[in-house]
Amino acid sequence: MLRAAVAAGYDAWGYNRSEFGVRAARADGFDVDADIESVLGRAAAADALLVVGVPMPALDSILSDVKLFAPGCPLTDVVSVKAPVAAAVHEHELGTHYVGGHPMAGTAESGWTASAPDLFHGAAWAIGVDPGTRAEPWTRVARLALDCGAYLVPVVAAEHDRAVARISHLPHVLAEALAVTGAGGGDLALGLAAGSFRDGTRVAATAPDLVRAICEPNAAALLDALDDTLRLLGDARETLASRGALGELIDAGYSERDRYDTLERWEITGIRPGDHEWLEKLREAGQRGGVIRGLDG
Amino acid sequence: MLRAAVAAGYDAWGYNRSEFGVRAARADGFDVDADIESVLGRAAAADALLVVGVPMPALDSILSDVKLFAPGCPLTDVVSVKAPVAAAVHEHELGTHYVGGHPMAGTAESGWTASAPDLFHGAAWAIGVDPGTRAEPWTRVARLALDCGAYLVPVVAAEHDRAVARISHLPHVLAEALAVTGAGGGDLALGLAAGSFRDGTRVAATAPDLVRAICEPNAAALLDALDDTLRLLGDARETLASRGALGELIDAGYSERDRYDTLERWEITGIRPGDHEWLEKLREAGQRGGVIRGLDG
Repeated sequence: MLRAAVAAGYDAWGYNRSEFGVRAARADGFDVDADIESVLGRAAAADALLVVGVPMPALDSILSDVKLFAPGCPLTDVVSVKAPVAAAVHEHELGTHYVGGHPMAGTAESGWTASAPDLFHGAAWAIGVDPGTRAEPWTRVARLALDCGAYLVPVVAAEHDRAVARISHLPHVLAEALAVTGAGGGDLALGLAAGSFRDGTRVAATAPDLVRAICEPNAAALLDALDDTLRLLGDARETLASRGALGELIDAGYSERDRYDTLERWEITGIRPGDHEWLEKLREAGQRGGVIRGLDG
Repeated sequence: MLRAAVAAGYDAWGYNRSEFGVRAARADGFDVDADIESVLGRAAAADALLVVGVPMPALDSILSDVKLFAPGCPLTDVVSVKAPVAAAVHEHELGTHYVGGHPMAGTAESGWTASAPDLFHGAAWAIGVDPGTRAEPWTRVARLALDCGAYLVPVVAAEHDRAVARISHLPHVLAEALAVTGAGGGDLALGLAAGSFRDGTRVAATAPDLVRAICEPNAAALLDALDDTLRLLGDARETLASRGALGELIDAGYSERDRYDTLERWEITGIRPGDHEWLEKLREAGQRGGVIRGLDG
């Protein structure tokens, strides 16, 4: 995030709790510190936009510091779930200037060395349009995401969480199950594994603690998605056992992958932050696949 | 296969039942015909190595023609399962000169336009070492695969089929289920989908008839693999429901993906085709992850 913001021309500085991470970022010329009070103090003085990028288990501690040292700053986050973050933000009484965010980009790697200035180019960036969201911080968050090369998908927290359970958290769980089942075939099976296994297990290379921190806070929505998948796989298993055929799953999967490949991301225009019912209108447009590519529409 | 063989310097020609496929290949300068009798007659006269590359449902018809027009040629195949192909070959009394094969390479695309001369570079190529396999046709198949840039994994039919159920057929089924479950979140979910969903559903873009032709002939082994996956996912579902945690699956998946990433493909040397117990020795080496990179060892 820091790399992308600086590459986009922002005067940006960062905090990391790890001295190792701080040194690595500094070695690359970035303005990073392990002293949260000083980093947030500068932010408060500059009315900077705060971007919180930590796994859920670390969120509470960070928000305590924000409340102490920079409670008036506009605040967003890039955490993988939105309803639990919003709940924590409101618990810390930081809701007034908060707008949820979630750039849909990343790799199986983590840490400073995995950072890249163009990570968000062409990526979808979920941006909160929950009731009560204010136009001023929303516009700052939107502008940052757009300046990083992303396009915006307006969404409320609960709907975001249900959606990412299906297209981000479930893929992690399936990748883990595929890795384990494949390895159950021993070195012979792993030695024969090619593209379908490699791609299907790619995200299983993500650090386990990070996977848990991404998926587990979204347990309810992930359960729904998992149950759908278990039902589909169970049905395929039954027809395969009873009549040697995988049944409807194959055509359905092909058709839905094609729907994904050909999805039209139409551009939302004419809804300005602060306009009458702007949040409801953006939410409804996002549900229908609309995206925002600029703020001057 | 034809592209790769020609690129490797072989005098090779081909048959395709589709006039469209024949025209496309000819337009690229390849020697291809839709007349199976003439293609196989040339092969018989030249004692050419026959490589059968058709989906399982088309196999029987091709083998009938081979039996009629070129029954004495060395014979291999690149079909996705081995035991059903071997059974069909023996039914047609073509077993004497047969050696099973399966290059582990491909894309979600099919047809002539999807062909590429370097498809097999660096790929694993399963080669049959079933009891009764003869050294002469085996050496010709091995040499072709090596000349196409692949390395050989010696394996008997049943063990091959159990292995690919886990690392090739199961990934297809999981990709289909992920595509359907993801699309269940509507355009909002698909619009937020990024790398994990894209990679996890990549092979769902394969033509449904081809997926069925690949997976369904291997029903028994695929059922075993599917049941393992259903058990893993069911356990994760239970711990997620009862205590909000995905349990052991995440660490296990990470560890097995790492095992795949770091798998050492050690080189089999000193076993020559036709030597005493060469088939048993190659089979045992393949089970332990051994591969063949040249025939002069």
